[in-house]
Amino acid sequence: MLEQTRIADNGKPRLVIVGGGFAGLELAKALRHADLQVVLIDKQNYHTFQPLLYQVSTAGLEADSIVYPFRKIFEEQDNLFFRLATVECVDTDKQILETSIGYLRYDYLVIATGATTNFYGNNLIEQSSIAIKSIEDALSLRNTILTNFEKALQIDDEEQLNSLMDYVIVGGGPTGVEIAGALSELRKHVFPKDYRELDFVKMDIHLIQSGPRLLNGMSEEAAVKALEYLERFGVKVWLNRRVQSYDGYTVTLDSGEKFISRTLIWAAGVSGAPIKGLRKESILKGNRLQVDIHNRVSGYTNIFAIGDIAAMITEEYPQGHPMMAQPALQQGRLLGKNIMHMLAGKPLQAFTYDDKGSMATIGRNRAVADLKVFKKEYRTQGFRAWLIWMFIHLISVIGFRNKLFVLMNWMWSYFSYDKGIRLIIGKKHENVPVEAVTSKTVV
Amino acid sequence: MLEQTRIADNGKPRLVIVGGGFAGLELAKALRHADLQVVLIDKQNYHTFQPLLYQVSTAGLEADSIVYPFRKIFEEQDNLFFRLATVECVDTDKQILETSIGYLRYDYLVIATGATTNFYGNNLIEQSSIAIKSIEDALSLRNTILTNFEKALQIDDEEQLNSLMDYVIVGGGPTGVEIAGALSELRKHVFPKDYRELDFVKMDIHLIQSGPRLLNGMSEEAAVKALEYLERFGVKVWLNRRVQSYDGYTVTLDSGEKFISRTLIWAAGVSGAPIKGLRKESILKGNRLQVDIHNRVSGYTNIFAIGDIAAMITEEYPQGHPMMAQPALQQGRLLGKNIMHMLAGKPLQAFTYDDKGSMATIGRNRAVADLKVFKKEYRTQGFRAWLIWMFIHLISVIGFRNKLFVLMNWMWSYFSYDKGIRLIIGKKHENVPVEAVTSKTVV
Repeated sequence: MLEQTRIADNGKPRLVIVGGGFAGLELAKALRHADLQVVLIDKQNYHTFQPLLYQVSTAGLEADSIVYPFRKIFEEQDNLFFRLATVECVDTDKQILETSIGYLRYDYLVIATGATTNFYGNNLIEQSSIAIKSIEDALSLRNTILTNFEKALQIDDEEQLNSLMDYVIVGGGPTGVEIAGALSELRKHVFPKDYRELDFVKMDIHLIQSGPRLLNGMSEEAAVKALEYLERFGVKVWLNRRVQSYDGYTVTLDSGEKFISRTLIWAAGVSGAPIKGLRKESILKGNRLQVDIHNRVSGYTNIFAIGDIAAMITEEYPQGHPMMAQPALQQGRLLGKNIMHMLAGKPLQAFTYDDKGSMATIGRNRAVADLKVFKKEYRTQGFRAWLIWMFIHLISVIGFRNKLFVLMNWMWSYFSYDKGIRLIIGKKHENVPVEAVTSKTVV
Repeated sequence: MLEQTRIADNGKPRLVIVGGGFAGLELAKALRHADLQVVLIDKQNYHTFQPLLYQVSTAGLEADSIVYPFRKIFEEQDNLFFRLATVECVDTDKQILETSIGYLRYDYLVIATGATTNFYGNNLIEQSSIAIKSIEDALSLRNTILTNFEKALQIDDEEQLNSLMDYVIVGGGPTGVEIAGALSELRKHVFPKDYRELDFVKMDIHLIQSGPRLLNGMSEEAAVKALEYLERFGVKVWLNRRVQSYDGYTVTLDSGEKFISRTLIWAAGVSGAPIKGLRKESILKGNRLQVDIHNRVSGYTNIFAIGDIAAMITEEYPQGHPMMAQPALQQGRLLGKNIMHMLAGKPLQAFTYDDKGSMATIGRNRAVADLKVFKKEYRTQGFRAWLIWMFIHLISVIGFRNKLFVLMNWMWSYFSYDKGIRLIIGKKHENVPVEAVTSKTVV
């Protein structure tokens, strides 16, 4: 039998937030003056700035510059109690959460659990590929890439060499495009100096996109330019293709093409990560929770959902809002305000999404940006977009220290054409051991 | 059967260096103009600046600021071939090394494998304690400390609370003293803000030293001041005590005292880490290799040893040189010069150790330093010693980027009284699961 989590009852209503991503964190901060006991649960002890994970995975940034300890964020916020735990399920009748550290009673529950990688049911791909949703994933990818080249030094056989030097990225959204760009930069400026014994003409970077264009959700201009930049950087972009199978060695597309690669990076989609125990009727396609205009989960009065996990179906957004940082931040902020209103018996404010546009960067000096400034669209590509991308990301990273360290790392990389964090520390992803395949071919 | 490691024979004599610590790295750099094929083997792809590992373990520095990728160091050095591998053993007759990536023929072999933690044969202590010889160890200790406090929040039982909040450090050398000081800083300035629900009066830091004084090898003045500083910071120092047993929960000293702690940090000694296959007569007490004044291993003509692993018995140093950075650096440098001389048919130069003194820091603003400047002794303690300590360590860290990042981290910590890297990322050390012991006591 699970015991009760030891958080002293201070007589105030308890609001539990599950997940400290953009939405949960913003909500927790917005409730700093609320007469509530706010409990934030996360499975990590830090907030992750997800948009820069790809730079951790490609040796450009160290983990510490894009994550921030929750306890440090809330040092001064007396009504907040952080708990490092995973949530198993919820009993909405008894108003109890079951967690890895015991059960936790709530008066209000806010689900901000975000999204998880969607492998569309393909278990083999799930086991053999790398997705980048967390710092540990990103570090694992970095370690894997570097280990591949160390192993490649031992190999003569052409196919085996391809399997270690070639990369297949699935998904032409911002993450896929950004990783492909970063890998092509490493191939051009960094790896040839590190691995003088290898011929980097042999290193292929494939980007597979199911639709006819890259960057769905951005403008046609952005998509065209992104493709142009990637091709100029030597990335092989395969449009209108899907991965049919991957066994850790051979990637087969539905169009019949086959690639040999031990490293498949899966950035082809996400789905919601709801908590077990919620009524099925509230869970929509893509595992997102149906919420009303106040982010209240349908069928409940005291349960809310914000961020990627929440699907607020409106005329303008019949599929819910895009699963990105901005809707999450805005929903978190408004829900904080609304909960304060609720406690004060005031009417709630309906959520409207202020779309500020979106961006993606493609290696050095190149980005695409569709911005909305005071409801006016402003599209730009190339060096100017790249500067805007850097500026926006820099000011969004939490904390002055992290901004400073990210800026210094970027400046360093820019002027030295270098990516400094080429370290193999911690776990890596390994498919079929190379040794098993290659012992015959080594001379 | 092992295959031959794939390093193209370029017709030049091959010199293999095993280990890229201070000694091996310095040697490899000193051979940059040598007409040799220099192969450096290390089990990591980066050099570790060991003197600052304790700051990684106490959340003061991120790993990337004290390690440096070997390939980056040797980008411009054409005669150097790096291989990420572990060495299994050596066949000195056939002049072959067996490694995890195949066998490797050598003409000259330099053993720079350093030292490993000495548990004096106590397997139980070895399994249950944490030593800090590598970045992975340091990160694991950091993760363990932070996880302990997260768990402590769930516990009422006084003894269980002690087991998570109390720390026992074994060994009163620089590492033990530095960790004790850093932990006391965290207890004073950082943890009480992070864990408002815990009472940090309950957090004990014990330092166990077998001899009658701290910092053997340094002056009596340094030892006295170090003790004074530690006690002022609230560290409980136990002199003339040895750990008799530790089961992951109860630490028993030979004097009968018992402490409850789930985290025992072992900094009580090191011994050499020689390669298997060398003649037994060359291995001295403490597993170090006996070398002559040219660092040649006794009984061999083409095998050398430098750094911690080498014991050069002289009148002044009947036990060999101290196992620290300076002798390693100086031996590496001279051996490089001597190998160049050897290839040119010139006479070799005998090694003499230029003792520059030693230092240890004890938390904020406090350090002890016994320096030798132009053979003159200069002893200082307190703030001035702390500034000298910082300056010397800063200029010793490899690479301008790392110097800059270490400096910025230090300045940040100094002015904010903060240690920013309070992240649980990667593996941690766990003795008896707390859950197993505590489920009854949680309310």
